[in-house]
Amino acid sequence: MSNNTSVLLARRPDGNPRPEDFKLGQTPIPQPGPGQALLKNHYVSLDAGFRNWMNEGAGDAVLPAMPLDQPVMGLVMGEVVESQHPDYTAGDWLMARIAWQEYSLADDSHFIVKIDPDAPYPMNLYLGVLGDTGLSAYFGMMDIGRPQKGETALVSAAGGAVGSIAGQIARILGARAVGIAGGSEKCERLVSELGYDAAIDHHGDLRAQLAENCPDGVDVYFDNVGGPLLEPVLDHINVHARIALCGAVSSYGQAQAGPSNLFQLVTREATMQGFFAHTQVDRYPEARAQLAAWLDEGKLTAPEYMLEGIENVGPAFCDLFAGRNFGKTIVKLC
Amino acid sequence: MSNNTSVLLARRPDGNPRPEDFKLGQTPIPQPGPGQALLKNHYVSLDAGFRNWMNEGAGDAVLPAMPLDQPVMGLVMGEVVESQHPDYTAGDWLMARIAWQEYSLADDSHFIVKIDPDAPYPMNLYLGVLGDTGLSAYFGMMDIGRPQKGETALVSAAGGAVGSIAGQIARILGARAVGIAGGSEKCERLVSELGYDAAIDHHGDLRAQLAENCPDGVDVYFDNVGGPLLEPVLDHINVHARIALCGAVSSYGQAQAGPSNLFQLVTREATMQGFFAHTQVDRYPEARAQLAAWLDEGKLTAPEYMLEGIENVGPAFCDLFAGRNFGKTIVKLC
Repeated sequence: MSNNTSVLLARRPDGNPRPEDFKLGQTPIPQPGPGQALLKNHYVSLDAGFRNWMNEGAGDAVLPAMPLDQPVMGLVMGEVVESQHPDYTAGDWLMARIAWQEYSLADDSHFIVKIDPDAPYPMNLYLGVLGDTGLSAYFGMMDIGRPQKGETALVSAAGGAVGSIAGQIARILGARAVGIAGGSEKCERLVSELGYDAAIDHHGDLRAQLAENCPDGVDVYFDNVGGPLLEPVLDHINVHARIALCGAVSSYGQAQAGPSNLFQLVTREATMQGFFAHTQVDRYPEARAQLAAWLDEGKLTAPEYMLEGIENVGPAFCDLFAGRNFGKTIVKLC
Repeated sequence: MSNNTSVLLARRPDGNPRPEDFKLGQTPIPQPGPGQALLKNHYVSLDAGFRNWMNEGAGDAVLPAMPLDQPVMGLVMGEVVESQHPDYTAGDWLMARIAWQEYSLADDSHFIVKIDPDAPYPMNLYLGVLGDTGLSAYFGMMDIGRPQKGETALVSAAGGAVGSIAGQIARILGARAVGIAGGSEKCERLVSELGYDAAIDHHGDLRAQLAENCPDGVDVYFDNVGGPLLEPVLDHINVHARIALCGAVSSYGQAQAGPSNLFQLVTREATMQGFFAHTQVDRYPEARAQLAAWLDEGKLTAPEYMLEGIENVGPAFCDLFAGRNFGKTIVKLC
């Protein structure tokens, strides 16, 4: 096999991405130059946040705007097959912010994280519960949310890659965890599979469900969604509430008016803080060790939504926005 | 004089308050009952935040909604003339959340703060730079803004009671202070009287002026205004920016759509935090001591906009919303 299949950005998504926004392309497998490693990719992690950089002119300090007809950028895990990078040799497993491809070149501009070859867990977990999404849940809940025993922690997109872990961490810390998801089936799974104390269906009456399921108010809101959920939640927060903004899946597509009641942050003396896991790489080992310990102790479960084959990477990304995933969405390439 | 003149809420303000929203009323001077002190009021502090509780059904944990035809609640300073409260005796000076009246009864439900009788500054300063507004500037800037040397601190309503102090604190801490105010005259006074490094006129093109006057971005935004200023500022914040939400003078009258770009808090890993000074009464002495030291050292100036007479209390409150004040707005009653 000398061909390398890539997923290209066929057109800029209008709102939620659709499978036709992506197409496959073939190029020869590249050769690594100085400072580069060639990866054979095993797993593509699908993360809603990357939607943001598919917009025209969306480039920022994190990533340039993705060009049309070029491979889509994402978080990918592969094995080094050839290297001219001083830190990596054939056989190393790397996670990097590189393209949705079967083979990719990675260099120091690609935010490479090396996975310990003696890692005791299946590699795919290092993209999920032990990867950026699990670590996002960990940092957001431990540093910003800081739920106390007896407090109520509310999580949006509670069945998603981050939310599924965030709610469990809140419970481990002794809080009551309430999850928001779309549809009664997902809501049931939040309670039965992830241990949420209660679930709220965002297709229903949010304010009524908030009053019913969070009778003592909301102390922590871990927001993976942004957009129209924030306003009713702000009306339900307690004094000194902490709101961790992890993502804004509902607004990657287009700007939406924000909540009209931000003044609630003043009257409740509340805090709203945005964060990224990837800026705290130096804390990954500590955070991973804690997450792994909770996995070992059976306190944490790590659901996955796994598809197979490069042709399913684009559709899997669309599934995130349609809410078809439960847990971490990954495509296995080989 | 056995009559007590009060300012009553004649009707609920529609948007910004107007003088006709208030009227004067006469009642006999009341007698204190057990647990009450009778104050002869000297100074009424005008604070935009109280506008919020003039709305129908606006009651919350801080204050009940103000009833029509009843005395308007605010922050008032007076001298005890008669007391059946165990902690206060005639001659004591108290600051309390009581009504706009010549004489008021105060009890423990009125958030009373006693002013040291040996206080070395004129009593009116304890409503301004050494009172809730100065302390709001202090807590918001020291605890939330935390401007560092070389950073840029932006302050809205920069010529107001809180903003006039907040900007000066930012400069004392070594930051570049940029103020937002309405009109070229106020903008000039920000620079010439308060030492702001630059000023932005919110009647002009905000984005262009932000780019020009905050060329290195905004590290701290001390927001006294809320509403439409927040969106352009969010587009101009730096990584790890801190936004202190002190008030929302622009939205006390009516709900407004919030900023459509709250996602900037995520991409900049920024924090937005609301706060009140009055919940930190235990820190007032420490904070007052620092503010007083800065006054003594000539580092801090405390502008006031002072009117006289109970009939001017309503109009002075309206002046706040029309932006006619510079510095702390106070009405001297006697």
